[in-house]
Amino acid sequence: MSFKASVLTLFPEMFPGPLGISLAGRALEAGRFVLEARQIREHGIGTHRMVDDTPAGGGPGMVMRADVMAAAIDAAAPEGDPRPRLLMSPRGRPLTQKMVKDWAAGPGLVIVCGRFEGIDERVIEARGLEEVSIGDFVLSGGEIAALALLDAVVRLLPGVMGKAESASEESFENGLLEYPQYTRPQEFEGREIPEVLTSGHHGKVAEWRRAEALRLTRERRPDLLEASAQPATK
Amino acid sequence: MSFKASVLTLFPEMFPGPLGISLAGRALEAGRFVLEARQIREHGIGTHRMVDDTPAGGGPGMVMRADVMAAAIDAAAPEGDPRPRLLMSPRGRPLTQKMVKDWAAGPGLVIVCGRFEGIDERVIEARGLEEVSIGDFVLSGGEIAALALLDAVVRLLPGVMGKAESASEESFENGLLEYPQYTRPQEFEGREIPEVLTSGHHGKVAEWRRAEALRLTRERRPDLLEASAQPATK
Repeated sequence: MSFKASVLTLFPEMFPGPLGISLAGRALEAGRFVLEARQIREHGIGTHRMVDDTPAGGGPGMVMRADVMAAAIDAAAPEGDPRPRLLMSPRGRPLTQKMVKDWAAGPGLVIVCGRFEGIDERVIEARGLEEVSIGDFVLSGGEIAALALLDAVVRLLPGVMGKAESASEESFENGLLEYPQYTRPQEFEGREIPEVLTSGHHGKVAEWRRAEALRLTRERRPDLLEASAQPATK
Repeated sequence: MSFKASVLTLFPEMFPGPLGISLAGRALEAGRFVLEARQIREHGIGTHRMVDDTPAGGGPGMVMRADVMAAAIDAAAPEGDPRPRLLMSPRGRPLTQKMVKDWAAGPGLVIVCGRFEGIDERVIEARGLEEVSIGDFVLSGGEIAALALLDAVVRLLPGVMGKAESASEESFENGLLEYPQYTRPQEFEGREIPEVLTSGHHGKVAEWRRAEALRLTRERRPDLLEASAQPATK
């Protein structure tokens, strides 16, 4: 059975969007995953299909109603649906490649896209939504975060990546950033490809790449080194 | 003059994509920012418009050529163009709301979307590209990361957010995650809105929200509290 993603959104026309193109687009066409974008508003209240209301306690913005969201979630994923239920939210757990890998090995995902002002806390609790964040910045809604998460997951599904694309995620698997890459021409604006890379000496190439990956990680993301140095205590 | 974003990509058809809809879409239509997606392949080599080649030193995948990328960048942003030049890359500096704010106050952005195997290191150096990452996960390309970054920037441009949308980013500004939100109905599946929120007592509401924001941040993202507690030593 294919991996199935159900996205709950007020803007279903944003999907598949970039996921309909290139690597994900070919996978979608080949049936390697199924993507449905479901309009939350279909479960809205009254003739105006109202989905939100003013925050209890006051404040700007609107909050999406628990009853509307619950109806939308239940319609997309009835009881017994084994797929994890995510809510894209800057309050959520930061997305990592490890989470991406786990989900890619599962049956699919139900992803709720909130507007940033938020959705009623009670439906998060009642429907067991797992809040996930793609970073410490604020988007206009959860949709682009859902696209990013799904792109990351879809490329790991069986048969999606060819040999040419397949080695990439190693960079986060060994806990280091990727080493610098070079290709032809040999000289570009007076800059040469580092000699070791054209030496034909595979051992020295591997050694240089490992040292460069370590140097870059130390310079840019010492937090990654600290995290992998203490796996047992965290 | 409007904020102008130039995106260099092999998949210009991914733009404006989700940025053509909802908040960003209305801003685009109103001319509050300009978005151009430029096809890197127009600067490719020979009749096949080749843009990449095999990695020096061996290994899987392809690397985008420095000369091709330089030509694409120079055509989009000739010398003297004041816009920051970004490269979306998992090796980059993690995107924060502070960076988003700074860029929203500037003239625009030039954003290069690489494929993950990478682009030749020499053009990153020669054209002063600033590598930016939206998180510790691997995408099939930089395009969706660029969409996320631009969505975050565009909503902060003058006149884009109305009063209803405007308070949201406060959550990252004070260094805390956002407090839980509630709205009608008063009861949902046996769950009530917390009494303090319907008390009408503004001081107590503010106090409760502050305490909840602190509790959530402590539980989910203690790193944010540590970061803001030691501003002078980091």
